[in-house]
Amino acid sequence: VGGPVLTSSRSPRVTAARRLAKRAFRSRERLFLAEGPQAVREAVASPGTVLEVFATTEAAARHPEIIDAARVGGATVTPATDGVIAAMAQTITPQGMVAICRFVDVRLDEAVDGDARLVVVLAQVRDPGNAGTVIRAADAAGADAVVVTDSSVDVYNPKCVRASAGSLFHLPVVVDADFDAAVAAGRAAGLAVVAADGAAPVDLDDAVDDGRLSASTMWVFGNEAWGLPDEVLTRCDGSIRVPIHGRAESLNLATAAAVCLYASARAQRR
Amino acid sequence: VGGPVLTSSRSPRVTAARRLAKRAFRSRERLFLAEGPQAVREAVASPGTVLEVFATTEAAARHPEIIDAARVGGATVTPATDGVIAAMAQTITPQGMVAICRFVDVRLDEAVDGDARLVVVLAQVRDPGNAGTVIRAADAAGADAVVVTDSSVDVYNPKCVRASAGSLFHLPVVVDADFDAAVAAGRAAGLAVVAADGAAPVDLDDAVDDGRLSASTMWVFGNEAWGLPDEVLTRCDGSIRVPIHGRAESLNLATAAAVCLYASARAQRR
Repeated sequence: VGGPVLTSSRSPRVTAARRLAKRAFRSRERLFLAEGPQAVREAVASPGTVLEVFATTEAAARHPEIIDAARVGGATVTPATDGVIAAMAQTITPQGMVAICRFVDVRLDEAVDGDARLVVVLAQVRDPGNAGTVIRAADAAGADAVVVTDSSVDVYNPKCVRASAGSLFHLPVVVDADFDAAVAAGRAAGLAVVAADGAAPVDLDDAVDDGRLSASTMWVFGNEAWGLPDEVLTRCDGSIRVPIHGRAESLNLATAAAVCLYASARAQRR
Repeated sequence: VGGPVLTSSRSPRVTAARRLAKRAFRSRERLFLAEGPQAVREAVASPGTVLEVFATTEAAARHPEIIDAARVGGATVTPATDGVIAAMAQTITPQGMVAICRFVDVRLDEAVDGDARLVVVLAQVRDPGNAGTVIRAADAAGADAVVVTDSSVDVYNPKCVRASAGSLFHLPVVVDADFDAAVAAGRAAGLAVVAADGAAPVDLDDAVDDGRLSASTMWVFGNEAWGLPDEVLTRCDGSIRVPIHGRAESLNLATAAAVCLYASARAQRR
């Protein structure tokens, strides 16, 4: 990394990056921070996403391929001190590297079309770590898209970006979606809209056995604490629960979502 | 709740409770804190576990059944102010209630015997939230026991207790286990010892199809960042990976564990 090293945490560029910790600033600028080499690596692999990378000399030397990819993609690369990186980042360990990224979300009609076989809707999910972990699980299970409703956490929250482990850059993500519009798009694309609900009469094993999960599915996952409200459940085509074989009252949202999505992936691929 | 209200955060009883934030003190006293009504409810339902409950007047009025169960179980119930509860607790929202609990772990030979069909081993897991979430998923999937090796996080860490959502009190948990002893106990109990490993040649779908997952299984899960080291892998009977259908590099440890355990539960119960 060449050029003058950014050393002052009070530089206007640092202040501008730090502001991206706040959702209002992110929304206005349509920019967010990717923190740490893993996230920056995935961001620079996504064409047109990264505006600027800030890296310590040590981090740049450790990850030359990230710096090269950033330059090839047209991003500015600025050397900075550990103190400057720490001042920009929200996470505890940015490991010497952050990137300012353009929003990557897409429109609902781009994400959910007739080719989609497995789509995830996050309705009223409030915990950013859970949201990011579900995006990662959706990516791993081969989902075509994730739709985040307007009453949910901001996917560009640093904790969500971190928990997604790069998956935010891998598959189409829709944000601020109206729930009814998401359901309508799913139905129009031929997907069955299925709510994950702990009180559903049908469990996941039954749904695999009766062939239901072999169909193209839009899974709807709700809030960790209170699940899905009735007005959401009634708009879905059906609901399925993850069976609880032991004494736990429920599963964590992200683990429940992973179990459901992998059950669908297996059923659809057989 | 009767009796004098504990109002001073500098009371020796508060200091004693607060010390339980440190692993060394927990280990010495063999005591830990359950924080918040959900955890305290599960703790008092576990006979002989709770020594003392501290609750605000408001929390006690909101959850009279917890206070009753604590008294029936022989626990002391002490009214305290919000400030005192907050001073004792490590979590952000203890919601007016904490309990001092005896360690609940059991011996390896009690947890893993000939009746066990599904056992979880956590080897070198360092993140307390992940460990707690796996314990919760193991409980939900109907596992018989969780064995935590001596190189892993302390399950009595407040973040682990919280993430387990009561499951720490539901199923037998072994702590500080020697890995070789855990594997030997599993084999003696007739369990196949299977490592979850992203580089395994066999994936979960294959293992379901070829009948392998229908057998009694001891699943071994490793560290979030580096997985399982070779010296652990070579001691297992085999390894299985969760298939990655999309572009994610891997799954979060707890979501991967949930997918594996539910695959086993389904295969064993058919």
